[in-house]
Amino acid sequence: MQRSYSRGNDHLRPVKITRKFTNIPEGSVLIEIGETRVLCTASVEEKVPHFQKGSGKGWVTAEYSMIPRATQTRTQREASKGKLTGRTMEIQRLIGRALRSVIDLKKLGERTIWLDCDVLQADGGTRTAAITGAYVALVDAVQYLLDKKLLKTNPIEDSLAAVSVGKVQGNAVLDLDYEEDSQAEVDMNIVMTGAGKFVEIQGTAEDIPFDREDLNNFLELAEKGIRSLMDAQKAAAETSV
Amino acid sequence: MQRSYSRGNDHLRPVKITRKFTNIPEGSVLIEIGETRVLCTASVEEKVPHFQKGSGKGWVTAEYSMIPRATQTRTQREASKGKLTGRTMEIQRLIGRALRSVIDLKKLGERTIWLDCDVLQADGGTRTAAITGAYVALVDAVQYLLDKKLLKTNPIEDSLAAVSVGKVQGNAVLDLDYEEDSQAEVDMNIVMTGAGKFVEIQGTAEDIPFDREDLNNFLELAEKGIRSLMDAQKAAAETSV
Amino acid sequence: MQRSYSRGNDHLRPVKITRKFTNIPEGSVLIEIGETRVLCTASVEEKVPHFQKGSGKGWVTAEYSMIPRATQTRTQREASKGKLTGRTMEIQRLIGRALRSVIDLKKLGERTIWLDCDVLQADGGTRTAAITGAYVALVDAVQYLLDKKLLKTNPIEDSLAAVSVGKVQGNAVLDLDYEEDSQAEVDMNIVMTGAGKFVEIQGTAEDIPFDREDLNNFLELAEKGIRSLMDAQKAAAETSV
Amino acid sequence: MQRSYSRGNDHLRPVKITRKFTNIPEGSVLIEIGETRVLCTASVEEKVPHFQKGSGKGWVTAEYSMIPRATQTRTQREASKGKLTGRTMEIQRLIGRALRSVIDLKKLGERTIWLDCDVLQADGGTRTAAITGAYVALVDAVQYLLDKKLLKTNPIEDSLAAVSVGKVQGNAVLDLDYEEDSQAEVDMNIVMTGAGKFVEIQGTAEDIPFDREDLNNFLELAEKGIRSLMDAQKAAAETSV
Amino acid sequence: MQRSYSRGNDHLRPVKITRKFTNIPEGSVLIEIGETRVLCTASVEEKVPHFQKGSGKGWVTAEYSMIPRATQTRTQREASKGKLTGRTMEIQRLIGRALRSVIDLKKLGERTIWLDCDVLQADGGTRTAAITGAYVALVDAVQYLLDKKLLKTNPIEDSLAAVSVGKVQGNAVLDLDYEEDSQAEVDMNIVMTGAGKFVEIQGTAEDIPFDREDLNNFLELAEKGIRSLMDAQKAAAETSV
Amino acid sequence: MQRSYSRGNDHLRPVKITRKFTNIPEGSVLIEIGETRVLCTASVEEKVPHFQKGSGKGWVTAEYSMIPRATQTRTQREASKGKLTGRTMEIQRLIGRALRSVIDLKKLGERTIWLDCDVLQADGGTRTAAITGAYVALVDAVQYLLDKKLLKTNPIEDSLAAVSVGKVQGNAVLDLDYEEDSQAEVDMNIVMTGAGKFVEIQGTAEDIPFDREDLNNFLELAEKGIRSLMDAQKAAAETSV
Repeated sequence: MQRSYSRGNDHLRPVKITRKFTNIPEGSVLIEIGETRVLCTASVEEKVPHFQKGSGKGWVTAEYSMIPRATQTRTQREASKGKLTGRTMEIQRLIGRALRSVIDLKKLGERTIWLDCDVLQADGGTRTAAITGAYVALVDAVQYLLDKKLLKTNPIEDSLAAVSVGKVQGNAVLDLDYEEDSQAEVDMNIVMTGAGKFVEIQGTAEDIPFDREDLNNFLELAEKGIRSLMDAQKAAAETSV
Repeated sequence: MQRSYSRGNDHLRPVKITRKFTNIPEGSVLIEIGETRVLCTASVEEKVPHFQKGSGKGWVTAEYSMIPRATQTRTQREASKGKLTGRTMEIQRLIGRALRSVIDLKKLGERTIWLDCDVLQADGGTRTAAITGAYVALVDAVQYLLDKKLLKTNPIEDSLAAVSVGKVQGNAVLDLDYEEDSQAEVDMNIVMTGAGKFVEIQGTAEDIPFDREDLNNFLELAEKGIRSLMDAQKAAAETSV
Repeated sequence: MQRSYSRGNDHLRPVKITRKFTNIPEGSVLIEIGETRVLCTASVEEKVPHFQKGSGKGWVTAEYSMIPRATQTRTQREASKGKLTGRTMEIQRLIGRALRSVIDLKKLGERTIWLDCDVLQADGGTRTAAITGAYVALVDAVQYLLDKKLLKTNPIEDSLAAVSVGKVQGNAVLDLDYEEDSQAEVDMNIVMTGAGKFVEIQGTAEDIPFDREDLNNFLELAEKGIRSLMDAQKAAAETSV
Repeated sequence: MQRSYSRGNDHLRPVKITRKFTNIPEGSVLIEIGETRVLCTASVEEKVPHFQKGSGKGWVTAEYSMIPRATQTRTQREASKGKLTGRTMEIQRLIGRALRSVIDLKKLGERTIWLDCDVLQADGGTRTAAITGAYVALVDAVQYLLDKKLLKTNPIEDSLAAVSVGKVQGNAVLDLDYEEDSQAEVDMNIVMTGAGKFVEIQGTAEDIPFDREDLNNFLELAEKGIRSLMDAQKAAAETSV
Repeated sequence: MQRSYSRGNDHLRPVKITRKFTNIPEGSVLIEIGETRVLCTASVEEKVPHFQKGSGKGWVTAEYSMIPRATQTRTQREASKGKLTGRTMEIQRLIGRALRSVIDLKKLGERTIWLDCDVLQADGGTRTAAITGAYVALVDAVQYLLDKKLLKTNPIEDSLAAVSVGKVQGNAVLDLDYEEDSQAEVDMNIVMTGAGKFVEIQGTAEDIPFDREDLNNFLELAEKGIRSLMDAQKAAAETSV
Repeated sequence: MQRSYSRGNDHLRPVKITRKFTNIPEGSVLIEIGETRVLCTASVEEKVPHFQKGSGKGWVTAEYSMIPRATQTRTQREASKGKLTGRTMEIQRLIGRALRSVIDLKKLGERTIWLDCDVLQADGGTRTAAITGAYVALVDAVQYLLDKKLLKTNPIEDSLAAVSVGKVQGNAVLDLDYEEDSQAEVDMNIVMTGAGKFVEIQGTAEDIPFDREDLNNFLELAEKGIRSLMDAQKAAAETSV
């Protein structure tokens, strides 16, 4: 099996993380993983949703969208259709949940950080790229709050990244592009913390059920990929912008 | 930790599966797992969705809903709100995907089987109960098609059941009820086939990330629980109705 | 004309009323009239709608829905369509209005009782079955409030039941099933109090207009049917659950 | 009790029916009953709804709306809210059903007549005024089809009018205005044919249930009022426009 | 080119403005320009939208709708479709903006005047007719507030009218009817104040771009037409109603 | 008055046009005008809307959206709200109409070109930037069709660009940024062809009506600005990508 960028089954596509991609948001990160490109912005809002009011705790939430021609065939805008698809809802719930798992909402205080993940180009793995990029945008937004003395202590408790793994033509592979994804027998998204623990595992047998040995292979690939993504996050964070 | 029905951490709540709960649908199953009760009906429709037309293949899809007072506090109807919540969309996509994994759509032919899962009472584990019950309703609907000579060969390739596992107060437990679920550190839903393979693994650290050892414990509990559920499915299937 | 259950033109189908059909709501009644089955739950909410705030008066309101395969052909969910049909709106307004006619909202105090009528199986007469069953659920919810000392006096002023009558093949008949309803020349729904007075009369000539004599025949059949339904309500109310 | 226009309990408000109120529609009637004014247009469309295709039969349907300031307090537009209220749906279903009861859809052929009833000013009785006015618009639209030789025989089988009756301060009264309607104990809408038969009876006890004697009084008042309305319809129809 | 009413290129169609067309609103004006007829009502509401609260300033806003058969072919109701078209939104934003340009919102105080423009018959120029008629309704509503001593000083700073101009078959023409509008090369709507200044210029080349000389011709025609419309507004205002 | 980039009243902000900003669409242009950045993609679809079917003519249409944090304060997504705002509808109708004015739809043949304008950062003038950028994307999409031999002759008849002008603190100025726009007395958007003719003029007096002299000043500024924008378009078009 020939993979894009002539890479091995246990290799990521090239990763590029650009901070301050736009100037207005508190965090603004363009993450590129191969041909997949997601713009992740973090916006601080000094209020919380209804269910969190008076709790002393903040909130972190995500929204996800694709521009219509992020894909090979133009996709109708959800704003024009007048409703979100199930896929979009699933993805934005996943991103929000993942980010909340590494932030102490008590320390964040009664404010919301919105993570908007807009896919400019889609070539597989957009939801995991969104999580990985949104984490960097979140760090920048928190740094903004610390710099402005709106926060005294950093509420972020661990770093976070995500990757897809799967089985394609019988092989366990890391970081599937669109073509691989569309023929995968198993598709799994893994979110891990810097401490090497799992925050989310979502595996689906598209065609052929999988066993424990497959699962172990997937998890090993994922751990390797996530370590590389965390290196890229750190390198980006150290760049002065 | 005291569990409902004085059961151990590796035990299911009492399971009861009633076929022909209503008389009209091709399959109609009431599944009760402890206080959770889901009515799963299977309806055959002699047409397929747009994307499947002319393919010679059928379709299996699911819808999920709760009556407003299935829960402790009345929940507003999605029909009155005018849209489905993200949670409902996620669940019905999961149920449909799970059921499709054990049916040969080519053998089903160009027809659709709708699986409607209406929760009459909710006490945790409604989505896994829905999958386990819907499988039995699907079997009955397929038997109806075989009896009517509308199908020549059985398109169902394996049996299917699902269960939740998780970590509560530091303990790995099987089949969480609502109270356990609301305080769980980790929550995982597992769908398996009769051959003991995975169709879906969806694990979320609500609070504390988990490691490989936790995961292995969860999978063992799930396998045990699913074997019991399959026994209940078989017992129900053998009852003449 | 041969009627279902070999009954005469002035007879109801078999009636069965089961209280505490589910455990969570303050009132939960399964009413079965022949093959028609409606689950009626009553939920107490300690607030009132906007228009009733500060009035010292409570509110009683109803919602009505059918599970998709309550009918011979699967009906699309209103939640999936994103809106209620006119038929549903008409029915739920009728049920709410009928129940409010026998309760003193001042005595109820500033709280709402929701009556959710979910049709599990539909064979004609679902709206009148819903009113008859919802009345019993309302009685149970009021008893719950009396037992909890949240109410001092019973706000229910009279009992209530409803039935359909109509003209089929030229004959005035009581309690039409689906087959009769679909060929009826006239279809009329009557709601009456225990004191034998009318709360609602809704009669429609589907095909052939009717005269005063027809109307008088319909009303006599309705009174007879409603007396029987009230006997069934009383018998159910006396059962300890 | 002092009634508007110093009329007795068995008298209508002044009635005025103007044909050709606007020039474009096949039928266009302004009906004024006291201060209530409804513009009823009839539009012929050379196709039928989905469920009627290929049946050889036509369709007659109605839509009802109020301009925002038809009422004392401005009502929000349903177009701005994005959905029809239950009241509007109920009314437009009633108007459509009533008009269909006097037309032979087979003779109409596979075309639709839309009856749009737009309330310019509301002072009680808008739905019955709409039926009475829409009947005249329907007659004009049918005449248009006969004149154009699109129809060979007149499909209208009988004339039709509607009126409200009710009980106010203990008195049975005909044709309630808004003030009377808002304090009525019983409110009833009656639709009758020229042959003096009932097409619809919809009676609701708003406050105090009613008995057979009340009902008989209501029906007599309604018959008297409808005869007067039919005279006004005939007078308008004979006016050349 | 033969124009309707045998008029020259620089002439309006016949204009008729009727005040108090309905009795309930604070202002109610029927404006007829040739066959175009728009009912403009003004409603005073003693509150302001969210964004204006506490500002001490009022608000003036407009809504626009057509009855379904205002047009040659019946148009589906936006209320039935569940959303406003882009055209309607554009028009109602234009009307509101135009009216606000001649009123001092500070002097109006924290109240809203709603201008509802309902098109009863459409033959081109409905949006400019709506502005011209709504201005008269606004004047009446303000007079109502002055009479009731709810306002001390008149907040209206100048008069306002609007007209369409365009190029048809190479000729610059004033006040296009529907037939002209549908074949126009350029279509322009102009809103002017009594002082002869521009409030809005919206010109669109439907087919052939236009130059500065065209523009100057359009503006001269518009000024002439608007002076005539203002004469008609004044004449109507002086009529006692 | 000090303007951004220390520019004179008759100067544009810096303009940058990048072709092939993303790789998938037939045209993909990032246009930057000062801090305003709009991604304009052109997508070819081999079918036309309903109203154009069988006409032999193609269609060009536009959609416009802002990412939530394109603005200083996060704006709620229209997809989440479930409907487009009036502002969005107005803008996308303007863009589509403008682009259609320079293309021969007959020569385009029965296909649609979608122009998606997604604002990544907003600092005033997004709709005119969108038109100017979308024109370049349209040229690239047409070139793609010519290269693929799907078109024989170029259907584009002239070039096109747009700019905003207005009056700020009494001065006529070209190309307003957000701060200027929010305090402008007059705001005008002009769309012109390469031949120097007008396609659209949309001028609004936000606060103080304007006269013919003002208008002439605005038009001169606009012509100057549009000539500069057309130079930038040509420079970009000549870059090989």
